[in-house]
Amino acid sequence: MTTPLEIVRQFINLIETKEIDLALALLDPNISYENMPTKPVVGIDNVGRVLTGFLGPASQVDWRIISECAAGDTVYNERLDRFMINGVWLDLPIAGVFKVAGGKIILWRDYFDMGTYMTQFSKIMKPSGDEPA
Amino acid sequence: MTTPLEIVRQFINLIETKEIDLALALLDPNISYENMPTKPVVGIDNVGRVLTGFLGPASQVDWRIISECAAGDTVYNERLDRFMINGVWLDLPIAGVFKVAGGKIILWRDYFDMGTYMTQFSKIMKPSGDEPA
Repeated sequence: MTTPLEIVRQFINLIETKEIDLALALLDPNISYENMPTKPVVGIDNVGRVLTGFLGPASQVDWRIISECAAGDTVYNERLDRFMINGVWLDLPIAGVFKVAGGKIILWRDYFDMGTYMTQFSKIMKPSGDEPA
Repeated sequence: MTTPLEIVRQFINLIETKEIDLALALLDPNISYENMPTKPVVGIDNVGRVLTGFLGPASQVDWRIISECAAGDTVYNERLDRFMINGVWLDLPIAGVFKVAGGKIILWRDYFDMGTYMTQFSKIMKPSGDEPA
């Protein structure tokens, strides 16, 4: 019997290896994926599209679980989600809350600061040699 | 014996009633208060100043604990922190991580989106009747 904590860990590991189809297989058809600064993404196909989109530019994905906790079917983790893009690590501190039902993840909420992501992403995407005049 | 979960709940309740001195009495002298989008605030006096500053404009404070979890000395909660400012509720989804040592909170990390706060705050602070020309 796989515990909710183990299911969430498996899911995170599959994200890191970009095995998106295997990761999606751990989700309930009614999955709601809620990046708190934006609108919820509902259903496995939509979650797949979003994950493919934001993992795409990353040559390496390293989502470190700093600490975690489970209460019944709910799992909490504190993470540092790292993306290697154009040879530079983008680091995003996140707190995640997951709910598991019938062995599948049915709710995934990530709390983070969008500005922390965007500031790094813009810098990484800026053409090199672009210095103030 | 008060559990870490109970200490964190007491702390949140004292924030809601704006009993800041009683809230600060639950903190360890080495408290690190980390709003993840910004720099850590260290020490009881500094935390007191920050709390006084951002609770100040609120006529009511309602920090709802949506769910929570404890693993040893670490407490996780998912919250909706609400501030009534100029007669309007500002709602901020937050995930908090607290560490308790010797009955006092020594680490308090809040994960949230600064843009979600600032957008609402700016709107509330905007002079009324200010419409596009």
